[in-house]
Amino acid sequence: MKKAVVLLSGGLDSTTTLAIAQSEHYETFALSFRYGQRHDIELKMAQKNAELFNVSDHLTIDVNLRSIGGSALMTDMEMPERNSTGTDTKKEPDIGSEIPATYVPARNTIFLSFALSWAETLDAERIFIGVNALDYSGYPDCRPEYIKAFQDMANLATKASVEGRMRFKIHTPLISLTKAEIIKRGMVLGVDYALTWSCYDPKKEQVGNLEKSSASNNAGMHFVPCMQCESCLLRARGFEEAGVQDPLSRC
Amino acid sequence: MKKAVVLLSGGLDSTTTLAIAQSEHYETFALSFRYGQRHDIELKMAQKNAELFNVSDHLTIDVNLRSIGGSALMTDMEMPERNSTGTDTKKEPDIGSEIPATYVPARNTIFLSFALSWAETLDAERIFIGVNALDYSGYPDCRPEYIKAFQDMANLATKASVEGRMRFKIHTPLISLTKAEIIKRGMVLGVDYALTWSCYDPKKEQVGNLEKSSASNNAGMHFVPCMQCESCLLRARGFEEAGVQDPLSRC
Repeated sequence: MKKAVVLLSGGLDSTTTLAIAQSEHYETFALSFRYGQRHDIELKMAQKNAELFNVSDHLTIDVNLRSIGGSALMTDMEMPERNSTGTDTKKEPDIGSEIPATYVPARNTIFLSFALSWAETLDAERIFIGVNALDYSGYPDCRPEYIKAFQDMANLATKASVEGRMRFKIHTPLISLTKAEIIKRGMVLGVDYALTWSCYDPKKEQVGNLEKSSASNNAGMHFVPCMQCESCLLRARGFEEAGVQDPLSRC
Repeated sequence: MKKAVVLLSGGLDSTTTLAIAQSEHYETFALSFRYGQRHDIELKMAQKNAELFNVSDHLTIDVNLRSIGGSALMTDMEMPERNSTGTDTKKEPDIGSEIPATYVPARNTIFLSFALSWAETLDAERIFIGVNALDYSGYPDCRPEYIKAFQDMANLATKASVEGRMRFKIHTPLISLTKAEIIKRGMVLGVDYALTWSCYDPKKEQVGNLEKSSASNNAGMHFVPCMQCESCLLRARGFEEAGVQDPLSRC
């Protein structure tokens, strides 16, 4: 079996990407980051999916991007709300027209660099990343030309590639799929989307122990998607277009 | 003044690079990493030089590369000794003929990725890195073709570059200099090489408080270069060829 490092945030896209890598018969190694996110629900979801998909190893690296700053994802900058009506997902969210405030400077470059380092150590030539150029065209480091440039650089960057023993390839199986297509693909491959998290800015609700779900933390706080951030809107639109109910909304 | 991020390890090369960036009238921002090195002398030296060269900010990022592994610099792998006679630096060290065991997988790629992230946040178009292709040709990520590939990728990776507001340039002022030329250049620019550290595998010696030098830690342990690792040998040869005594050896 060929080895592959899979970047796994715990979101809908990266979990589907893990399922695709498994379905293509790679031995998978999942890589997550604790990078100063506002919450750690995603990382709990990543852990669950790493177990469910039986990865050979799951590594979570602490990387304090907060010290660099620059994004509403990690700082006290106000989260952008693209759709003030919240649950009205029929209204087209204004996504892709500009690079959003949730952009983290060079985040995918940092994540892919760690993936490259681990890949060389593991003797894994393949790196899977769930970038999507269609729904997230606002992010520069989700575009095909960026991925190609990273791959070219990677093949000049390491001992194994320069010595000709390894040839790195970055796989982006979602890059040209719509969110609905990603969801349909994942459902065929057995992804449980109740165990994926997308919201940038979840609300906390106190719950009793009996009601604790996969989106609850140890303090009994239940997290509820805001249904207003761009990530919630994209997710909701994706499930609607796929014609299925989002299982997370039933939690 | 134009801004520049300077990668500053606390070694001879990166400190000289900082001095060069200052002499070229950049407003400098120094970036260091605590990445699981065997010792932290280098980082103390970096802190001193950041102060001496009056950088606008000095950021040290914790990045645990130990969890990835793969290098004798961070693990219990035996350090290679290229010259068993130790201090006999007239003997040509066998450097550059193969990639050494001290190679850290994709280290410069990880470091440059953080530099890129910080540079975008600071609105700094220039990144300085003290790589050297002459003495360290064994490391793939010190070569000009690698640096060019990283720069090409960087200009596709960020919001500022894709929107046309910034054009990143990676400066490698040492890339084609010999170690002796680097030392002579640094001395002209006021670098105090007693405050730079090169040894991969220092020896500890207990000293009294009065004898504490810049290479002493708070526990009163004085660190002495091993004079056997490839980095010590390159440094010694450089000072010898430059015709000056290494001030660190007088500590």
